Amino acid sequence: MTLCGHQIFSFDNLCLTSKKTIQKVDIAYETWGRLDNQKSNAILITHAFSGDSHAAKNEGNKQDGWWEKMIGSGRAFDTDKYFIICSNVLGGCAGSTGPSSINPKSNKPYGLTFPVITLGDIVHAQKKLIDSLGIKKLLCVAGGSMGAMQSLQWAVMYPESIASAIVISAAMKHSPQQIAFNEVGRQSIMADPDWNDGNYYGSKEPEVGLAIARMIGHITYMSDKSMEQKFSRRLKENKFSFDFGGKPDFEVEGYLHYKGNSFVKRFDANSYLYITKAMDYFEVCAEDFCLQKNPKLKFLTIAFGSDWLYPPYQSQDIARQLKLKGYDASYCELKSTYGHDSFLLEIDIQAKLIKGFLNPLKK
Amino acid sequence: MTLCGHQIFSFDNLCLTSKKTIQKVDIAYETWGRLDNQKSNAILITHAFSGDSHAAKNEGNKQDGWWEKMIGSGRAFDTDKYFIICSNVLGGCAGSTGPSSINPKSNKPYGLTFPVITLGDIVHAQKKLIDSLGIKKLLCVAGGSMGAMQSLQWAVMYPESIASAIVISAAMKHSPQQIAFNEVGRQSIMADPDWNDGNYYGSKEPEVGLAIARMIGHITYMSDKSMEQKFSRRLKENKFSFDFGGKPDFEVEGYLHYKGNSFVKRFDANSYLYITKAMDYFEVCAEDFCLQKNPKLKFLTIAFGSDWLYPPYQSQDIARQLKLKGYDASYCELKSTYGHDSFLLEIDIQAKLIKGFLNPLKK
Repeated sequence: MTLCGHQIFSFDNLCLTSKKTIQKVDIAYETWGRLDNQKSNAILITHAFSGDSHAAKNEGNKQDGWWEKMIGSGRAFDTDKYFIICSNVLGGCAGSTGPSSINPKSNKPYGLTFPVITLGDIVHAQKKLIDSLGIKKLLCVAGGSMGAMQSLQWAVMYPESIASAIVISAAMKHSPQQIAFNEVGRQSIMADPDWNDGNYYGSKEPEVGLAIARMIGHITYMSDKSMEQKFSRRLKENKFSFDFGGKPDFEVEGYLHYKGNSFVKRFDANSYLYITKAMDYFEVCAEDFCLQKNPKLKFLTIAFGSDWLYPPYQSQDIARQLKLKGYDASYCELKSTYGHDSFLLEIDIQAKLIKGFLNPLKK
Repeated sequence: MTLCGHQIFSFDNLCLTSKKTIQKVDIAYETWGRLDNQKSNAILITHAFSGDSHAAKNEGNKQDGWWEKMIGSGRAFDTDKYFIICSNVLGGCAGSTGPSSINPKSNKPYGLTFPVITLGDIVHAQKKLIDSLGIKKLLCVAGGSMGAMQSLQWAVMYPESIASAIVISAAMKHSPQQIAFNEVGRQSIMADPDWNDGNYYGSKEPEVGLAIARMIGHITYMSDKSMEQKFSRRLKENKFSFDFGGKPDFEVEGYLHYKGNSFVKRFDANSYLYITKAMDYFEVCAEDFCLQKNPKLKFLTIAFGSDWLYPPYQSQDIARQLKLKGYDASYCELKSTYGHDSFLLEIDIQAKLIKGFLNPLKK
């Protein structure tokens, strides 16, 4: 894992939904732009399942980030206007405390002794980071997929601390199909003998199981159409192998192998378990939102037509429930063939929507 | 594996698409109804990926079959009128020769020395069975999913030997998404150390890997909606476990575990590899059908709206290509929430269509 460029915010004793406590917590974060004197121009960007704090290049890390083209001068999250913060989630493996971190009680990596966390706990830790920066109110919390579920969680837990939330390609709760895909990924990791009940740090990691979990994930991130456009039935070697275990026959198979094998170099298998579980546990409903606490809280929800992992009906449901609750909430469904990956790839149209949404918010 | 009630048709030297030969071939089959004197009332039912010859109960096996309510007196495949045959596919593990069979050359199970087969090879073996029964022309070849792909293969390879084909929930070729799901299943099996390069017969079988492959399969067989209807977010124990490795939290997880664990008792992991590979290799196009050889050949194609594994557009494509070629081919899209499983579950409406299709064919 390349861990460069981020800063670490550390604090003690994070009380969790499970009633357990994490004694020492590090939250890795990066920033872009400048915080104004009133500390009124801060936007928190929340990452998706396998993301990290490196949303875009900055002084500390010149490599492209996962939302590179969305953040910068003149971009959706305009660094000439806004102070952008992105932190690695609690439970993650890119600088923040998670199952691969050292448990101060044992001086060994937590492994499965790390407590099971929720998106509420993840947001709780983010709030402490934002407090530490002296920011009383975020102009916006914005993310896609699991990032957007954190935006919703912010609106539920800290409605007075945010002026708006951008919720892209998400759901108010995981459907059984979404839980099912996560569970198969978890089972694949736990089936790998190298997983060893989560005690693999310092020895061989469960790379095969984690790679298979990621392969399943990648199928769900793309669409039937985008796979057809990208691979069709093209062969790797121009003829069928009539064989197993050698090179894959189809390009799509080779792509999945490549994606799986790349992923294991940057991601921790136990973090996969913990973060997918946090997503599956996540559930907010209309009753969880308290309009009185911030009647001016604004929402922008976006969905993509070809996203079958977080289908548009789930985003429509978010907007409908928020509107019925009395919020200023808008919904926009965008055309794209990229499936769930659209929120990472469809830059221009999202930038237009986000700029239009953020602009009137700034004093 | 319960192997009862079927008969075995044996023959020597099946030449394969790969140019290899299988020396000794057994094909397990079952029949229902009576073959008429002209041998003109025979219908071959072709099973889907994990099916077998036991499509319905009969004298030899009183247990319900996989298409139980479709076969019998007065049913879609009316045993008062028709002689129904169903055989286990070559490469399978329910009585027909496959990778778990004894290789006569080594007197050991084939394992990966079994040659890679195609749906063409599977149909080739079925043709020899039909010939052995003295049937010159089948009234119909009918199946769903991989069964329907065999129907298409029959129409390509033996158009003069069939009067009609019923093609339910299928495709003329696997899309990259369909290949991808199969490949992840195969990788899951081959990642299990008990798989041992396919040499597990007589020792511990790769049950964990096979169960995970089946779990993935089950997600694709159902629909988002049918999973919501069947499980929603119901918990097994009324509260979150905040734990890994113990009992699953959600009912949908428990269901997938159960389905995976049941499957390994009746299915061979190597057969999983071989049969999914045959499906991925399958590809027929308009040019493969020779109208001149049987201009009267009729097709009925059926698809289900909620089937996202074999989406209706693939069935529409089959019907369109056959119609453009000059065939009498009809397409019917049925409403159902069951996803790909619909062809196994939506009995009444399919029965009505199939009866109406078969009735005018019988002399």
